[in-house]
Amino acid sequence: MKISARNSVKGVVKKVKIGVVSAEISIEIAPGIIITSIITKGSAENLGLKEGKEAYVVIKSSDVMVAVDDGK
Amino acid sequence: MKISARNSVKGVVKKVKIGVVSAEISIEIAPGIIITSIITKGSAENLGLKEGKEAYVVIKSSDVMVAVDDGK
Amino acid sequence: MKISARNSVKGVVKKVKIGVVSAEISIEIAPGIIITSIITKGSAENLGLKEGKEAYVVIKSSDVMVAVDDGK
Amino acid sequence: MKISARNSVKGVVKKVKIGVVSAEISIEIAPGIIITSIITKGSAENLGLKEGKEAYVVIKSSDVMVAVDDGK
Amino acid sequence: MKISARNSVKGVVKKVKIGVVSAEISIEIAPGIIITSIITKGSAENLGLKEGKEAYVVIKSSDVMVAVDDGK
Amino acid sequence: MKISARNSVKGVVKKVKIGVVSAEISIEIAPGIIITSIITKGSAENLGLKEGKEAYVVIKSSDVMVAVDDGK
Repeated sequence: MKISARNSVKGVVKKVKIGVVSAEISIEIAPGIIITSIITKGSAENLGLKEGKEAYVVIKSSDVMVAVDDGK
Repeated sequence: MKISARNSVKGVVKKVKIGVVSAEISIEIAPGIIITSIITKGSAENLGLKEGKEAYVVIKSSDVMVAVDDGK
Repeated sequence: MKISARNSVKGVVKKVKIGVVSAEISIEIAPGIIITSIITKGSAENLGLKEGKEAYVVIKSSDVMVAVDDGK
Repeated sequence: MKISARNSVKGVVKKVKIGVVSAEISIEIAPGIIITSIITKGSAENLGLKEGKEAYVVIKSSDVMVAVDDGK
Repeated sequence: MKISARNSVKGVVKKVKIGVVSAEISIEIAPGIIITSIITKGSAENLGLKEGKEAYVVIKSSDVMVAVDDGK
Repeated sequence: MKISARNSVKGVVKKVKIGVVSAEISIEIAPGIIITSIITKGSAENLGLKEGKEAYVVIKSSDVMVAVDDGK
């Protein structure tokens, strides 16, 4: 399946934390760059996410904000 | 200002494309990893975004999806 | 690729409207039920979207609001 | 109240699952098409959502992604 | 219609800027507090938005970030 | 840090409710106008949010919907 979300980056799952409805997943996409994701507990189980597994972070371009340091 | 968005990654602006209301910004956050962002034209101008400038991509964790390859 | 977005529904593209940065896509997912999507022009071109083509709408569960009629 | 969210589809609540802060609601909008929503527990209670109740799913067009099968 | 989005604040439209696909709407919700919204051009026309008209800004709680000043 | 999110409004934290993964924060931005936010528990702790503390609500313009009363 090809999807319209423009950003898809491969990484490795570093941590999985499960709540009642939600789950928090940390994925390292480059050395030292860890992206945190909140998905439903159902999705986390369905994807079989666990530490050490390869996974992609997928982000729509309209969900990416841009910031700059003050004074630059 | 410290913000609740969990993901903030530094990079360099690679491309800026301006529309009537929106602007598309490409930021390289690691060698070969380019993140595309859609923000308003007003924000792009206000932040002074242009090629070569340092900038951060900022993403809420609830806006990060996770995917895995089929069959893994 | 399997993705954490919980909602994926197959349909047929009914209309494609292209702007400078954005594109508006209408997809019929059941008789009379048409879902409208705004994606980047780049994604619309990359996916080869045009009238009559089969396509899926994909929606994160945290992006789905619920409403009820007043007084019910 | 008329809202800018372009997509509003009527259905019937099939399941309600309550967490500490969040709630997961499943709504059938056409035979076999079930949409899953995550809202706050407060909203779920405020709307009086329960199995069998009529409800709408409401989705902004910028929150709808589009996907196509590979190779099509 | 009652909706799950937790935040609904009444205001007055201050500015409407129309693009090819998108529209930018500025709404004053309290003296000096102006909220900017990007919706589709189709929604802006459908709601009949123009300067001076009463309108509500509606925001899901999961789309509201929180920030604090550094050092506080 | 200057961010592309167009809406940033100062207020005072009125309530903090903590779940397993998520936290619900209520911030009063003008007399009687309270905005509710869902962020991760980790962010709430990291920002040191508690009742009476000054904080900003930050919202992307594409996350702001607009509504009007029926018949107006």
